Amino acid sequence: MPAKTVLASTVSASFREQIKKDIKERQIQPKLVGFLANEDPAAKKYAEWTAKTCAETGVTFELRKVDKQDLEEKITEANEEKEVNGIMVYYPVFGGKQDLYLQSCVSYLKDVEGLCHKFVYNVYHNVRFLDEGETMKCIIPCTPLAIVKILEHIGVYNSVLPYGNRLYGRTITVVNRSEIVGRPLAAMLANDGARVYSVDVNGIQLFTRGTGIKLSAHKVEDVETTLEEAVGHSDTVITGVPTPNYKLPTKLLRDGVVAINFSSFANFEDDIKSRASIFVPSVGKVTVAMLERNLLRLHDHQQKQN
Amino acid sequence: MPAKTVLASTVSASFREQIKKDIKERQIQPKLVGFLANEDPAAKKYAEWTAKTCAETGVTFELRKVDKQDLEEKITEANEEKEVNGIMVYYPVFGGKQDLYLQSCVSYLKDVEGLCHKFVYNVYHNVRFLDEGETMKCIIPCTPLAIVKILEHIGVYNSVLPYGNRLYGRTITVVNRSEIVGRPLAAMLANDGARVYSVDVNGIQLFTRGTGIKLSAHKVEDVETTLEEAVGHSDTVITGVPTPNYKLPTKLLRDGVVAINFSSFANFEDDIKSRASIFVPSVGKVTVAMLERNLLRLHDHQQKQN
Repeated sequence: MPAKTVLASTVSASFREQIKKDIKERQIQPKLVGFLANEDPAAKKYAEWTAKTCAETGVTFELRKVDKQDLEEKITEANEEKEVNGIMVYYPVFGGKQDLYLQSCVSYLKDVEGLCHKFVYNVYHNVRFLDEGETMKCIIPCTPLAIVKILEHIGVYNSVLPYGNRLYGRTITVVNRSEIVGRPLAAMLANDGARVYSVDVNGIQLFTRGTGIKLSAHKVEDVETTLEEAVGHSDTVITGVPTPNYKLPTKLLRDGVVAINFSSFANFEDDIKSRASIFVPSVGKVTVAMLERNLLRLHDHQQKQN
Repeated sequence: MPAKTVLASTVSASFREQIKKDIKERQIQPKLVGFLANEDPAAKKYAEWTAKTCAETGVTFELRKVDKQDLEEKITEANEEKEVNGIMVYYPVFGGKQDLYLQSCVSYLKDVEGLCHKFVYNVYHNVRFLDEGETMKCIIPCTPLAIVKILEHIGVYNSVLPYGNRLYGRTITVVNRSEIVGRPLAAMLANDGARVYSVDVNGIQLFTRGTGIKLSAHKVEDVETTLEEAVGHSDTVITGVPTPNYKLPTKLLRDGVVAINFSSFANFEDDIKSRASIFVPSVGKVTVAMLERNLLRLHDHQQKQN
């Protein structure tokens, strides 16, 4: 029996409907500014796609094309613009550590991508609110959030279990440990109860929630295991290797595995459907829905502060 | 005439005397905590050296050896410890972007290295104070600061010119554009009036103060030039390539150049003294003096806040 293929568009549909309805009923005009500072065709395509999605849901989207050397200044200006509710940047700009610096230049009050240090730190420390009164929820980095929403949609999160423990019993391999997606994703899945093998070129780490009284922070260990073993133990495998040549061999996967790819390249082999129970070939459309969801949240935070 | 060699110990002496005197006369006991989470012999040596220098100047130093997977939690704890005035980390820990994340986990109130996003951002934006009343000076990343102090000591900064413009007319090449040293250093030198060629494997950028009304922010351009041309135009060349094999050919340098190496490896060739007017083979001891200077500043900020 071949795998059931679940498209990102299917998962994102209900979120988009909700956002559209929300904007219409409340008669608000949330505005997102996207900065494009590279010549990367993938980034350009992502920008066009953001524009299209925003137009459909009622979000005002403005694309600002800037020279990468002016980007920091332009972000600083947009942080101060009252009518801008959210800011995003199409990465990579410089690549490397300078991009991480730029991520924290976006004010947390407008950071729809959830990539500034404050929000990433809060994910790792399981801090859910910006204020003591717990009225303003934190923004969660949008690609990891999109993947969690997909996992909920396809039943990997078990809603019979209590909230915060719905991945208990799951073993998940995440092939990617970037600061943007892979590492926060592994932490979030571990915080929800999964055993997570986090794989990158430097080795394999095991993320778990840990034991003892400190349940708020996940635990990370370097483990002496192989990709074969990690994947062989996993009921869910999530890939995000940003190269066209990487293919995770289907023969390593368990029968009935849930396979999710968030790379813009196909990381699974063509015969993946002969082995998986559920296959999600891409997540981008859910990520854009999460961007819009984060935008609405920030819009409301800003209203509260005025 | 061979170059005059200026040792970091000579430059650091007066700073250390001042710190020692300050601690003694004011009868204060500033405390620095250093986190060692790697097995790197260079980091270990740096830690021993910090301990020795602190003992000599009257700073209480405590080295905490921790597993790298526990480091973030231990930093968070130290952020809260009242008796700890400053925190430093011996990098690299994970290497790559995760270390940049860790740098921002140190509270800016205790960040003696000046590597958290807030302080690095303030360097780039020429923000000098933490508060509107301008009573609390920002911390400047300690290695770039050490290099500026060395440049002042050896007369590259011209004290005849007005403050903030003392490098006007200088052309400086910096071979290193790391987020920790090379990039903030290039920005600081440009803000003080120099033309700065910033060199790394990805290319050469020219940092200047720029023109027009926005003098507070430096300007960066990608330039089509070669290392030979950049170095050939420079009266001062500063190297920081972290590999034993890199040697900047002496023949590229102008006669009478000022040559400063901040790498732990010798980046100039053995015959550098035949070409340079002033040669500074290392900067580490000045960096440690700046760490202590930053510690005193943070100590005083903390006293003010209590």
